[in-house]
Amino acid sequence: MKILLVGAHGTVGRGVATELKARHEVIAAGRRGATVTLDLADAASIRKALESLGPVDAIVSAAGQVGWAPLLELTQEQWAYSVANKLMGQVNLALVGQEFLRDGGSITLTSGVLFDQPVPYGAAASLANGGIEAFVRAAAIELPRGLRINAVSPGVLAESMEDLGPFFRGFEPVSAARVALGYSRSVEGSDTGKVYAVQ
Amino acid sequence: MKILLVGAHGTVGRGVATELKARHEVIAAGRRGATVTLDLADAASIRKALESLGPVDAIVSAAGQVGWAPLLELTQEQWAYSVANKLMGQVNLALVGQEFLRDGGSITLTSGVLFDQPVPYGAAASLANGGIEAFVRAAAIELPRGLRINAVSPGVLAESMEDLGPFFRGFEPVSAARVALGYSRSVEGSDTGKVYAVQ
Repeated sequence: MKILLVGAHGTVGRGVATELKARHEVIAAGRRGATVTLDLADAASIRKALESLGPVDAIVSAAGQVGWAPLLELTQEQWAYSVANKLMGQVNLALVGQEFLRDGGSITLTSGVLFDQPVPYGAAASLANGGIEAFVRAAAIELPRGLRINAVSPGVLAESMEDLGPFFRGFEPVSAARVALGYSRSVEGSDTGKVYAVQ
Repeated sequence: MKILLVGAHGTVGRGVATELKARHEVIAAGRRGATVTLDLADAASIRKALESLGPVDAIVSAAGQVGWAPLLELTQEQWAYSVANKLMGQVNLALVGQEFLRDGGSITLTSGVLFDQPVPYGAAASLANGGIEAFVRAAAIELPRGLRINAVSPGVLAESMEDLGPFFRGFEPVSAARVALGYSRSVEGSDTGKVYAVQ
């Protein structure tokens, strides 16, 4: 398969790349330093990237920035940034990307454990995750040509505990390699409208 | 209790008003024709409305417009409208509104059955509902002064079946009066971070 991987250089993305590269052609996309330059918050850049690639079999997003601050200190700019990136950025990736998928191709987006296990500072992340999980279920029943769409909901990454540990006390960290299995199930399996919790 | 009810003249809002007016002072708010004028998509109008009222004991949103179209025909404008109204409009109502709540007061937002039971044309509604459900859980653990926040997730309204019936075949309609009980539980109970499914 020819797979576009957005956010290829993040912690999750590197794990996904390692998992999928063993069997497929993985094209790394991201805001900088990747084979293909693509900013989730910029729908035109999504289209441009896909036009440069031609048809693909799978589109995977391991990306999606959000604002991180106490609930009452999150600014309007941080809310807008979170919505434009992790939420609508991934939605736009799916909606633009489906045009470039071969029949039966798949889209895999990223949610996260904060969807239903919130932590302080994480309200914008929680909101984005909730939107993504509902969106993949809704999109799954309307996508044409046998296209599939799922999400993976990673727990806190073991690789991120040095930075995020204080926010996630008591959460069992998961390795990026284990999280990558969720993406493999979505891309290489046959499900649609599913959320794979790897937590 | 003194309760601000946003979307008071909608189908759900009228049911909520009937239920809560029996025991409380309910102030109707909406974009037009209400006691207090308030547009969820306009944060400044939310603040202005609350400043005109002084402290309240509860804020209830039975509002939140979304775009409604086949997945691949939803325009960027319809997505933005959905996010600005049902999703971030309700979030802004909570974030601005909490300043005007008395200690221990409550916020009640509206999700909907499309969160996890999607129908064609409903992807933007599903997304907004997912964001709201995740947001109330996240906000509940950070709100100060014993403030509470919950959501109600109504099924398709019996009163709306003439218009919406073709989209919701097989869904069991619920009356606005029954849906209103969810809002009563949130306002008059002690829960926080809950989603009451009245479906």
